[in-house]
Amino acid sequence: MADVYSDIGFAKLDLSRGKRTGLPETIYAAGKTKEQLLEILQTFHQKNINVLATRCSLEQYEFVKKSHLPLRYNETAEILRLGEDKTPKNGVLAVCAAGTADLPVAEEAALTAEFSGVEVKRFYDVGVAGLHRLLSKIDEIRQADVIIAVAGFEGALISVLAGLVKAPLIAVPTSVGYGASFQGLAALLAMLNSCAAGVSVVNIDNGFGAAMAACKILKLKEK
Amino acid sequence: MADVYSDIGFAKLDLSRGKRTGLPETIYAAGKTKEQLLEILQTFHQKNINVLATRCSLEQYEFVKKSHLPLRYNETAEILRLGEDKTPKNGVLAVCAAGTADLPVAEEAALTAEFSGVEVKRFYDVGVAGLHRLLSKIDEIRQADVIIAVAGFEGALISVLAGLVKAPLIAVPTSVGYGASFQGLAALLAMLNSCAAGVSVVNIDNGFGAAMAACKILKLKEK
Amino acid sequence: MADVYSDIGFAKLDLSRGKRTGLPETIYAAGKTKEQLLEILQTFHQKNINVLATRCSLEQYEFVKKSHLPLRYNETAEILRLGEDKTPKNGVLAVCAAGTADLPVAEEAALTAEFSGVEVKRFYDVGVAGLHRLLSKIDEIRQADVIIAVAGFEGALISVLAGLVKAPLIAVPTSVGYGASFQGLAALLAMLNSCAAGVSVVNIDNGFGAAMAACKILKLKEK
Amino acid sequence: MADVYSDIGFAKLDLSRGKRTGLPETIYAAGKTKEQLLEILQTFHQKNINVLATRCSLEQYEFVKKSHLPLRYNETAEILRLGEDKTPKNGVLAVCAAGTADLPVAEEAALTAEFSGVEVKRFYDVGVAGLHRLLSKIDEIRQADVIIAVAGFEGALISVLAGLVKAPLIAVPTSVGYGASFQGLAALLAMLNSCAAGVSVVNIDNGFGAAMAACKILKLKEK
Amino acid sequence: MADVYSDIGFAKLDLSRGKRTGLPETIYAAGKTKEQLLEILQTFHQKNINVLATRCSLEQYEFVKKSHLPLRYNETAEILRLGEDKTPKNGVLAVCAAGTADLPVAEEAALTAEFSGVEVKRFYDVGVAGLHRLLSKIDEIRQADVIIAVAGFEGALISVLAGLVKAPLIAVPTSVGYGASFQGLAALLAMLNSCAAGVSVVNIDNGFGAAMAACKILKLKEK
Amino acid sequence: MADVYSDIGFAKLDLSRGKRTGLPETIYAAGKTKEQLLEILQTFHQKNINVLATRCSLEQYEFVKKSHLPLRYNETAEILRLGEDKTPKNGVLAVCAAGTADLPVAEEAALTAEFSGVEVKRFYDVGVAGLHRLLSKIDEIRQADVIIAVAGFEGALISVLAGLVKAPLIAVPTSVGYGASFQGLAALLAMLNSCAAGVSVVNIDNGFGAAMAACKILKLKEK
Amino acid sequence: MADVYSDIGFAKLDLSRGKRTGLPETIYAAGKTKEQLLEILQTFHQKNINVLATRCSLEQYEFVKKSHLPLRYNETAEILRLGEDKTPKNGVLAVCAAGTADLPVAEEAALTAEFSGVEVKRFYDVGVAGLHRLLSKIDEIRQADVIIAVAGFEGALISVLAGLVKAPLIAVPTSVGYGASFQGLAALLAMLNSCAAGVSVVNIDNGFGAAMAACKILKLKEK
Amino acid sequence: MADVYSDIGFAKLDLSRGKRTGLPETIYAAGKTKEQLLEILQTFHQKNINVLATRCSLEQYEFVKKSHLPLRYNETAEILRLGEDKTPKNGVLAVCAAGTADLPVAEEAALTAEFSGVEVKRFYDVGVAGLHRLLSKIDEIRQADVIIAVAGFEGALISVLAGLVKAPLIAVPTSVGYGASFQGLAALLAMLNSCAAGVSVVNIDNGFGAAMAACKILKLKEK
Repeated sequence: MADVYSDIGFAKLDLSRGKRTGLPETIYAAGKTKEQLLEILQTFHQKNINVLATRCSLEQYEFVKKSHLPLRYNETAEILRLGEDKTPKNGVLAVCAAGTADLPVAEEAALTAEFSGVEVKRFYDVGVAGLHRLLSKIDEIRQADVIIAVAGFEGALISVLAGLVKAPLIAVPTSVGYGASFQGLAALLAMLNSCAAGVSVVNIDNGFGAAMAACKILKLKEK
Repeated sequence: MADVYSDIGFAKLDLSRGKRTGLPETIYAAGKTKEQLLEILQTFHQKNINVLATRCSLEQYEFVKKSHLPLRYNETAEILRLGEDKTPKNGVLAVCAAGTADLPVAEEAALTAEFSGVEVKRFYDVGVAGLHRLLSKIDEIRQADVIIAVAGFEGALISVLAGLVKAPLIAVPTSVGYGASFQGLAALLAMLNSCAAGVSVVNIDNGFGAAMAACKILKLKEK
Repeated sequence: MADVYSDIGFAKLDLSRGKRTGLPETIYAAGKTKEQLLEILQTFHQKNINVLATRCSLEQYEFVKKSHLPLRYNETAEILRLGEDKTPKNGVLAVCAAGTADLPVAEEAALTAEFSGVEVKRFYDVGVAGLHRLLSKIDEIRQADVIIAVAGFEGALISVLAGLVKAPLIAVPTSVGYGASFQGLAALLAMLNSCAAGVSVVNIDNGFGAAMAACKILKLKEK
Repeated sequence: MADVYSDIGFAKLDLSRGKRTGLPETIYAAGKTKEQLLEILQTFHQKNINVLATRCSLEQYEFVKKSHLPLRYNETAEILRLGEDKTPKNGVLAVCAAGTADLPVAEEAALTAEFSGVEVKRFYDVGVAGLHRLLSKIDEIRQADVIIAVAGFEGALISVLAGLVKAPLIAVPTSVGYGASFQGLAALLAMLNSCAAGVSVVNIDNGFGAAMAACKILKLKEK
Repeated sequence: MADVYSDIGFAKLDLSRGKRTGLPETIYAAGKTKEQLLEILQTFHQKNINVLATRCSLEQYEFVKKSHLPLRYNETAEILRLGEDKTPKNGVLAVCAAGTADLPVAEEAALTAEFSGVEVKRFYDVGVAGLHRLLSKIDEIRQADVIIAVAGFEGALISVLAGLVKAPLIAVPTSVGYGASFQGLAALLAMLNSCAAGVSVVNIDNGFGAAMAACKILKLKEK
Repeated sequence: MADVYSDIGFAKLDLSRGKRTGLPETIYAAGKTKEQLLEILQTFHQKNINVLATRCSLEQYEFVKKSHLPLRYNETAEILRLGEDKTPKNGVLAVCAAGTADLPVAEEAALTAEFSGVEVKRFYDVGVAGLHRLLSKIDEIRQADVIIAVAGFEGALISVLAGLVKAPLIAVPTSVGYGASFQGLAALLAMLNSCAAGVSVVNIDNGFGAAMAACKILKLKEK
Repeated sequence: MADVYSDIGFAKLDLSRGKRTGLPETIYAAGKTKEQLLEILQTFHQKNINVLATRCSLEQYEFVKKSHLPLRYNETAEILRLGEDKTPKNGVLAVCAAGTADLPVAEEAALTAEFSGVEVKRFYDVGVAGLHRLLSKIDEIRQADVIIAVAGFEGALISVLAGLVKAPLIAVPTSVGYGASFQGLAALLAMLNSCAAGVSVVNIDNGFGAAMAACKILKLKEK
Repeated sequence: MADVYSDIGFAKLDLSRGKRTGLPETIYAAGKTKEQLLEILQTFHQKNINVLATRCSLEQYEFVKKSHLPLRYNETAEILRLGEDKTPKNGVLAVCAAGTADLPVAEEAALTAEFSGVEVKRFYDVGVAGLHRLLSKIDEIRQADVIIAVAGFEGALISVLAGLVKAPLIAVPTSVGYGASFQGLAALLAMLNSCAAGVSVVNIDNGFGAAMAACKILKLKEK
């Protein structure tokens, strides 16, 4: 079983995920100590496996970067990448965000997809309160193969967008808002109840998960 | 104190509400027995006060109509009216509804406003999943002085509409939906978190309350 | 604007949805009166547009079938179809269900996809309490291009399945369960929090929405 | 489209909102970096557009004030204003607050309205536990054209006030309270369920939104 | 132990509760079969103990009344009494109700208290939307030794009343309301957060519990 | 794989569960049609496997009993048994219930355990409002090897009992209660937060699950 | 109106509360600035009114104590007292607390009551997990005229205690606990659903409110 | 009564818990001051009773360790032990954890059990997203007498594991996750609704409680 996972005591690193699911190896950095994170990165590096770490704090990054592993870090998205992005593949992903405060989540999605070799086009600050901003970009958005739409508050961007495009649309609610947004619950419920058909939803602030779903979808173009 | 309310034992009928708040006398019929409803209607009729009863079931109506009071009943909206609608006043109210299933609530709003003497224009089935339906009507909607927007599911109509008009907009979430709509909670939260400024919200399915708020607003035109 | 929607008073039938979103015309039958449903069906029929009605009660069906429109009805899934299913297209959809009580939702998904011309393979009663049932079918499931996984209770099927396949996976929580399932909330939250990457989720009991999302995804194979 | 919005990369500044909705340009400062806020302010300033920023922290203000833009800041309400308040218009707004701890939200409402050129009268600490405080001011309050009522805890001020006045009343629940106030949920639900007709509600702590709604209403006086 | 409870198989009837807690014997009839209810009543009757059954449905009553036990039944309050009310004691209880729809709960409180020998004064339909109704009765209410205040919707009656009286006030939220009242949750939270000091609260619709608490309080007058 | 499950189309009957988990075969009857239930029972009967069906309605039972399978039905607990109870094993289970209304859930637990060959002692109506009822039985309860404690309302029985006994205690919250019991949520939360150590909890009304857990525990005596 | 309240701009100090409600003047210090708190204290002091401030942080206290007003501060309970406690009155209050972590709330109750002139007996750490601790004190507790019972976690102390005593019992849920205690929600719901009759409940952590209710009750002894 | 508890003013130390419940003495350190904790430890030490303190912060530990009591501290699990672990007993406990971030809770369970003399085997990072990790360890896990399974996110580990083993399984949801995990609520609900029979659940993050339950179960082997 030595080739399917690597047991380092506190963790069993899944080395066959790529083969089973077609997705890159990833680490959920939150809740891990700096030392644990470093040990995991080193293990993957020794096995020549590129890996993406999400929810990696600046503090964690500053500790592991001393290791001289080939790391890149994005502070907005809290994403750490070990190794090069994959060779570009077929297909284009549009990442749309309703407001400026949604950028960390949108960038988490965009950077994750790029790490997997997906071409990403960004459309930011296209929320529906100023509908003309979205409409002026709609022809470009329609050219994407898959769309990720990121929004906080009431998430109305998703329903409007889904009624205007043919591509699959993955909705990401964000915790942006206050009061009765209840840390993203309002946006989550709104997206799950979207009157526009064909929308599917991931967890609040889960730009990473949306990108993973988009990558799986884009593989259909390759077949 | 005899002229401010009428004590009929199980209820104290407020006879000065019109004078204090500028709104018509109204009865919340749900939870009252048929006999109680009839006695209340008769008391108001004897005092020559027109009154509106909301949430009046067909069964309640069929009981009280035997009384030969001058009643009109609308089954969709469950609204019972005693006496004539008021003389039309200044101003126009637009009632917009996202889907066909929202009509009972939209009609509750429209009929309540008409009973108070407000001119109402109805714009039904203009939900944003098919944005062109709303946009084709937007010039007409813009001519209204106040707008009531009624929607279930994720209630995105409100945010789009509020970004396109100058008039005050009162949002009414409805319990239309299923699963994670949680009987209108999703729409309610979405509307409270609308990214479009100047929206205020009433209780789930409360078309009556929205109409009351609209009537109060329209009085500003009269001053 | 006459060619983009048809205004029949209580509703504005969206005639360009297929062109805009690539999805079939559909009606949400719940909350509409029998007469409204019939009028909508007749309007679509006159325009030679096939249409699918979801959440159509047996009572509604028995009323509209007297019209001699070319209708088919499935009582388990509460789905009504006007017109023929589309010509089969590329790609295969696997619909997996955890338990027998999830069949109505799974069939809603399967029948909706078939109406759109998608080939569907059904894998029912493969919940993880008896893991061997799922594992004995996993090779067949892996051959699908898209997977819809339907489960109530704690919805663990989704996480196990997503860790074993490459295809995009759309999760549908059902309201099957009792007590602290809170009408599907437990399954919904579990699916949104799946530790397996690449899962996206639709509303509770929304087999229809999952099928719409799957159809959009499968169009990528056609390009 | 250059004259409807200004694209500065991370944001698309809506330059036509005033024309479309009649409301001033505004920025939601929370969640924006200091640098983003400054760039937005400078862009508006170059286009000679006055703008209001809400939820602007002291730290953000101290950064942007170094720019020598014509800024004013109110620390209690966390409001930043670029440019002069508008010329006073017709109509008077009363802002009522139940307790001293509600002042930040009440001031957010009052300052926003004044920025739009609305005359504001403040009635603070008029909660119903000491009813005589409210009753002693009720005649003054009745002279306003619109009323904003701000309250935390159980928000009973709204129901009492709404039963005593003719003007439209916009209720703002605050997160003031503890325990089962659940950060303003108790007040929010209470206000949505007010037994007094004609009340509409905005999000928890959303003094800004209430002022925007009030400004839209007061425009009816101008027509 | 034979004198502290009576074991009848499916139940252990507590015969010493009166001695321990000073309260009358009571039965919660909901969830018991008709036969179980009858057997319990007969057991108490044989031991010469008067007993009160709450939430007793009309159907249950019609079954047990055939037994010729000395029973009285109130259909509004769903209260069944076996034996005579106790001899009147010192002290007066005021039961106030906000609206007509709250009467079943208010009567449950009033009848329970009367069964315990407490003198009750009823003040119904005194909700704060028409404040003059409450103020016209306030002097009479102030003469009571304990007050029970019953209200649904937002329950604002409690806060206003508590600010005007010296007597202990027990608040009973009712499930009267709709939408975001969430079956009485709104009223419950409002009452728990009342800004008026000295209010304590019982469960939603629990008129019985409020009366029990009031009876315990009134015993202080006897000492 | 033919010997691990039996595929009957709409279901895959798990034939190896007993071997894997040591528990009897069981069916969750709710949500299955009468015909499905019958077919499942007949399949198990043909394979000589005894099986227990929970949440089996009287209507379902009356349909399947026509089959002349060796069935026993308990209407209170809604439990259907196919085949004989197992030969008694070592160990004793105490099933305690707080009130009479909790009997259906308590009996579901007791009958399930007896079907598995466990000796059950019942202690009903021992809620803590009359503590002497519980204390008079505590010595008998202490003799059990495992305890299941069933309670609705606030579920305080569990904490008191757990502080008095050495045996493992499994808590079952029931949906008995009203208002803020929120269909058993209050009891569930109370039990999860019990201050007495060593309590574990199952789903609301899940007497079956508690019995399954107890059976697994009692097997330790056999080793 | 000068003698009923004192208007100091940001607040209207209620000077007639004692006369209306029989309770001492009190200030809710949380959410007030240090300067506001000082000004309020000075105003009351100038009018010779003793006053109690709750939720007064150590930081607030250290600011106001420089004023040389006659202040006493209790850090555990965060209570600040201006002026002497009242002359002792008739009656005894028992304050019971389940665990050591509940002491801040219990002390808030005890100190508030003492400030009003009530004699208080403290019974701490009497939670039901070790029932003998409570039973060894029950005779002393029974001698109190009113009981306040404070508990976090599942709050079972209240139900056990209420079944053993004749005095009125006011329950205070605390936010002590973790996980599914949801900051005191579990204890709050448990207490509202107590199977023991005659319990009333105040807000989470509201020792002050419980003391106010107890003071009102104890006044019945004086009549 | 001196030998059943020790009264130290702010606490009543339960000295007979071991005798009554068979569990070790334990202290819930959170919410106690450093001085209180020290006094409790010293009291137990003087009575020669070993004791375990959970949720003991590093700060608390650093204070009490100056006392030279025989203490051991584990920072990950925040567990403090006074005195030696008990002599090993019969039986083996498996502690399984889904991910690395669940280790603090898993270690709380493991260390608590070891303190009670239970032999513990740890199986960490065996979550179902990589099913092969769990399956490669399943034969070892099956040899345990009791299993504790710890998981955050959607907690699917529990259902899969429970379907594969005969031993009793106690599930511990953790607060690991984000967004719609709602601090462990998602995992808690999932576990309570597990489709695999025989699972019982403890509070979120309550590794201690799971260990206590496991210890009680393992005593059955000793009889």
